[in-house]
Amino acid sequence: MELIAPRHPREIREEIRRGKWTAPTAGLAPGYVQANLVILPEADAYDFLLFCQRNPRPCPLIEVTDPGSPEPAGVAPGADLRTDLPKYRVYRDGRLEAEVTEIAAYWRDDLVSFLLGCSFTFERALLDAGVPLRHIAEGKNVAMWRTSLACRPAGRFHGPMVVSMRPIPAPLVPRAVTVTARYPMAHGAPVHIGDPAAIGIRDVTRPEWGDPLPILPGEAPVFWACGVTPQAVALEAKPPLVITHSPGHMFITDLPDHALAVL
Amino acid sequence: MELIAPRHPREIREEIRRGKWTAPTAGLAPGYVQANLVILPEADAYDFLLFCQRNPRPCPLIEVTDPGSPEPAGVAPGADLRTDLPKYRVYRDGRLEAEVTEIAAYWRDDLVSFLLGCSFTFERALLDAGVPLRHIAEGKNVAMWRTSLACRPAGRFHGPMVVSMRPIPAPLVPRAVTVTARYPMAHGAPVHIGDPAAIGIRDVTRPEWGDPLPILPGEAPVFWACGVTPQAVALEAKPPLVITHSPGHMFITDLPDHALAVL
Repeated sequence: MELIAPRHPREIREEIRRGKWTAPTAGLAPGYVQANLVILPEADAYDFLLFCQRNPRPCPLIEVTDPGSPEPAGVAPGADLRTDLPKYRVYRDGRLEAEVTEIAAYWRDDLVSFLLGCSFTFERALLDAGVPLRHIAEGKNVAMWRTSLACRPAGRFHGPMVVSMRPIPAPLVPRAVTVTARYPMAHGAPVHIGDPAAIGIRDVTRPEWGDPLPILPGEAPVFWACGVTPQAVALEAKPPLVITHSPGHMFITDLPDHALAVL
Repeated sequence: MELIAPRHPREIREEIRRGKWTAPTAGLAPGYVQANLVILPEADAYDFLLFCQRNPRPCPLIEVTDPGSPEPAGVAPGADLRTDLPKYRVYRDGRLEAEVTEIAAYWRDDLVSFLLGCSFTFERALLDAGVPLRHIAEGKNVAMWRTSLACRPAGRFHGPMVVSMRPIPAPLVPRAVTVTARYPMAHGAPVHIGDPAAIGIRDVTRPEWGDPLPILPGEAPVFWACGVTPQAVALEAKPPLVITHSPGHMFITDLPDHALAVL
């Protein structure tokens, strides 16, 4: 698979739609917002929408489609959420049924798609601000854990907040906070800095998802709310059908990163 | 009616609940967030929640209750939305039926309450930052208009954005922008500065709601999204039942103003 050079998200989505790109999307369309995808039947959409409203740190909603419409008109007019992500996961009653590169065969007139901001946006802002991110430098997935921080429930959806951890050089921790705080629609400021046990993480050397990354002398562990939270919560509720992006295979919007910045 | 001295919102809500305060809430509980109220049957709640998600500038949601629960647990635990506002308006099929000081008689198990941030929060921030607000100094209501700016529709809810206008001394306009931009949950930065005709306002001397306020030499008209928008949109859809606060008679939350600041 050849590397796609930076160009407009529309062109990249077109490549993906034609099956020419099925790999993770990290690094594609630099400067444009990428998003987590959760698709649910309309019957579950109200509770999930409310869950996101009540838990904006882990669930920053940037788009909700009309029932049955695959077009995220607010963030990528003309795109088709059934074909424009490189890989999807289909769950029935909370169990993984298939991993596929398009979901036209699963589509129904009552499906509602939720797009949620993701950490790529704030990671780029951190790098631009001179805050190094070692998991990226080392080519690893970020480390993630369930925490003792409870989300506020909504109807059938409930569960703990999932966080990602990045080791940050201690002198740069304040900058890491202010830079990411500008992006509440991409998880925003950290939810915790320091002692992992304070948020229920027993062993910071063994993540529940992603790759381990040791915390070096002079670094502090910094924890951000993570987009795995809404996925975990959606699956835990075991609705008849849930479709999500496959990890790392995000939807690329037309929004420039700065469109999510609050100041 | 005697003036209630500044104290905790809980105590003020208690006075209101006991019928001792039926006047507007401006100036009560300084430093605490006040909110617009819209109550709808569950059948209309999804579309309205989605409308707010799609139009966060005019509709900054700070709380949505569980169906049938009158307690806004996220922003004022223990409060009762049926009694804790000084005055309500009850609409049937889009027509005003009653203006009352409590709504226990109208309560149903399927009602959902939406609380939306209001301009009091950013007006306080403007005053604290040294930006004068002449409508307050002159004891007037802020001037409001429907605009040519369309809200993004959601289900049965659609309509134009309503804005409020404040004349700001030209040298202070940038400060007025940055100060209010910190409060996206209280309408945030202005949506327009300058020529009223550019957003469809024909006569800036004749507001559709509130009191006229001339723009003096050296002042620029600055327009912010207004909480009248969701009320107008809700009524325009003519649902069987809508209950709102009466203008100026807001719900006082336990949230300090700084809880809504993004940075």
